[in-house]
Amino acid sequence: MKQSQLLFKAQREAPKDEKSVNAKLLVRAAFVDKLMAGVYSYLPLGFLVLKKIENIIREEMVKVGGQELLLPALHPKENWAKTGRWQTEEMFKLKSRGGKDYGLGWTHEEIITPLVKKFVSSHKDLPLFVFQIQNKFRDELRAKSGILRGIEFIMKDLYSFHKDEKDLSDYYEKVKSAYFKIFARCGLKKETFLTLAGGGTFSKYSHEFQAVTPYGEDLIYLCRNCSLAINKEIIEGEGNACFKCKSKNLEQKKAIELGNIFKLNDRFSKAFDFYFKDVKGQKKIVFMGCYGIGLGRLMGAIAEINNDKNGIIWPKEVAPFLVHLIPIEASKKVIKAADNLYDDLQNQGIEVLYDDRYGKGAGEKLVEADLLGIPYRMVVSEKTLKQNSIEFKERGTEKMRLIKISNVKVQMSKL
Amino acid sequence: MKQSQLLFKAQREAPKDEKSVNAKLLVRAAFVDKLMAGVYSYLPLGFLVLKKIENIIREEMVKVGGQELLLPALHPKENWAKTGRWQTEEMFKLKSRGGKDYGLGWTHEEIITPLVKKFVSSHKDLPLFVFQIQNKFRDELRAKSGILRGIEFIMKDLYSFHKDEKDLSDYYEKVKSAYFKIFARCGLKKETFLTLAGGGTFSKYSHEFQAVTPYGEDLIYLCRNCSLAINKEIIEGEGNACFKCKSKNLEQKKAIELGNIFKLNDRFSKAFDFYFKDVKGQKKIVFMGCYGIGLGRLMGAIAEINNDKNGIIWPKEVAPFLVHLIPIEASKKVIKAADNLYDDLQNQGIEVLYDDRYGKGAGEKLVEADLLGIPYRMVVSEKTLKQNSIEFKERGTEKMRLIKISNVKVQMSKL
Repeated sequence: MKQSQLLFKAQREAPKDEKSVNAKLLVRAAFVDKLMAGVYSYLPLGFLVLKKIENIIREEMVKVGGQELLLPALHPKENWAKTGRWQTEEMFKLKSRGGKDYGLGWTHEEIITPLVKKFVSSHKDLPLFVFQIQNKFRDELRAKSGILRGIEFIMKDLYSFHKDEKDLSDYYEKVKSAYFKIFARCGLKKETFLTLAGGGTFSKYSHEFQAVTPYGEDLIYLCRNCSLAINKEIIEGEGNACFKCKSKNLEQKKAIELGNIFKLNDRFSKAFDFYFKDVKGQKKIVFMGCYGIGLGRLMGAIAEINNDKNGIIWPKEVAPFLVHLIPIEASKKVIKAADNLYDDLQNQGIEVLYDDRYGKGAGEKLVEADLLGIPYRMVVSEKTLKQNSIEFKERGTEKMRLIKISNVKVQMSKL
Repeated sequence: MKQSQLLFKAQREAPKDEKSVNAKLLVRAAFVDKLMAGVYSYLPLGFLVLKKIENIIREEMVKVGGQELLLPALHPKENWAKTGRWQTEEMFKLKSRGGKDYGLGWTHEEIITPLVKKFVSSHKDLPLFVFQIQNKFRDELRAKSGILRGIEFIMKDLYSFHKDEKDLSDYYEKVKSAYFKIFARCGLKKETFLTLAGGGTFSKYSHEFQAVTPYGEDLIYLCRNCSLAINKEIIEGEGNACFKCKSKNLEQKKAIELGNIFKLNDRFSKAFDFYFKDVKGQKKIVFMGCYGIGLGRLMGAIAEINNDKNGIIWPKEVAPFLVHLIPIEASKKVIKAADNLYDDLQNQGIEVLYDDRYGKGAGEKLVEADLLGIPYRMVVSEKTLKQNSIEFKERGTEKMRLIKISNVKVQMSKL
């Protein structure tokens, strides 16, 4: 894409009304825009990142057998009354002109369970895995931390249905691995800790995926003895000792919750009277699991963790473009070389942002490039062209090197 | 995809609580599921169709210069108070625990106008075209007609910003052409009429794209004299005569509104005080246009128009799969031939639904195939294999023909 055609331009100053690192960077670089507290718009560059994250999640969900569907955001009161969750304070409620009560979905057990029930009667129909990527709403008293905690937010939620607890447990482990892959592909491999958490009303324990960062709003505890990560709630229940080895040698870390996985067991199948016939023809209750990832929150965490004083440093797989091509002079020779390189890279299937704003100064262009955070920067200038080369730099490193233009294709295929 | 893995199976009977053709067919074939009046879930097959439609629309929007973004569904009251539309009856309103007033978006002028204003100051920033594909909500007193008129629905909305009326008019014509392309690609070329409509409070006239069908809920009038299509509201204003030639030789047709395009002129830029500096440095008001298509409604219209007594007949570009591969016996020979053909077609990049349910009878499989409505059917049987062939049939036609297996690849590349 040519940068001259980019409609929403980065701003010189960080926004004054944002406190969190992620929002300061993302708003300034025009990836997102704040409509009101807890509600953001995704501008074209941010939308590209969101789609990259979405595709990574989709790919990994399909690999664990998930089939994608799309459930509504507007829910009838009746479904929530059945599980006793209509009164949940965080649920936005509204009335139609005709007097009907609706809630806005902050999760979808109350919708997916009766839906799947219509299609499942026998053990032959199980197990069954469905997921969606969809907008959710939650009436948070204090929406804060930029796009980390919103009152409107995009979630992937996967639901699994099983013939027994063992089958649920096996699948739960598969999803655990899939989640590690997703966060690794999003550039958060070394920060992500599987963290033991409470199970809510469903089962004894669940797991959170927490990304450690000094600006996280959660607290987790790493046991130095047995490498277990445990959330605050559990640690306090255990008298500030490790859940497993009882050691008090714990390291407290701030973290951002990227996702969570729950064994729901029969909590919702019971509420919706959801049984199946087993091999012997006997009526058995369905076991369920649910598995969530917040997409906006994940994008926020990536920006919050991957940055320096100059801007964001997007990990390759989620970057809006892979290469930022920047000619810093406006001579015929430079323009021609940059135009050719742009075509060549695109023909190679590489996503390039081409800074074709030839009226702008080199300094301004390079500052903006750092702010946008595209992984590879190629600078074209009179000087480098004398050696038939471009200057190549990876965002987040200081090392610059000259690469022969004839060699760019080979170099890029190696990355 | 293997049909045995399809989680949501077609039902023997049409649903009893659906009156419209589109809902009867789509619910029975398990493309959608009704959660409550006016609110549907998209099941995996329906989700595939939705994504096909989404991609067609996205491609055509990008061709007219649109850049994609994503705006929130939850809107602050303040924005709507500014344009005087907060009182709109169809707008769902809700309150947060903290007492803040929100509305659910049924359109996005109130959000996009102040957002774009932040980034536009000079004529150099114009024109500017942005679109999104996103969920909207409308408090309809009578949600009906299956997925044609919902209270929650998916829309593509494009907004354009211009330096003057002439530039807006030129772009308006471009979008008109893009819309014709979209509806043609969705298989509704001959049914779609550009229809003169009222302009609401914005400008004198707007245009609707109406698809003529006996089950449509709108009425349009085709002037036999000058080939103009005019909506009911305008015709009544003209004393039941053609708007252009005043002829009373009009043909009344039922139709489904697929999309609409509006010149908003300065209606919203005035409300949000949105000006720019022209070439001479003078302050000028921005001109706007908006252009909508309902994706669920389009899917409903396609099903409503393209069907026969046996089920849906999906047009090629929006079909969930291009080929339905159906072995009707369970011998080793048939299974092997079907397995090979499935691999070959997939390697060729063709989307295939493979009915690998070898326990099912031929009759049941073929009935279900007609219901699902995949464009090309390939039946593999002992009989056809004796001639090293499969039986090929296009959905919606009666003609069957034998194609040599060695020839399938060439035949498919011609379609």
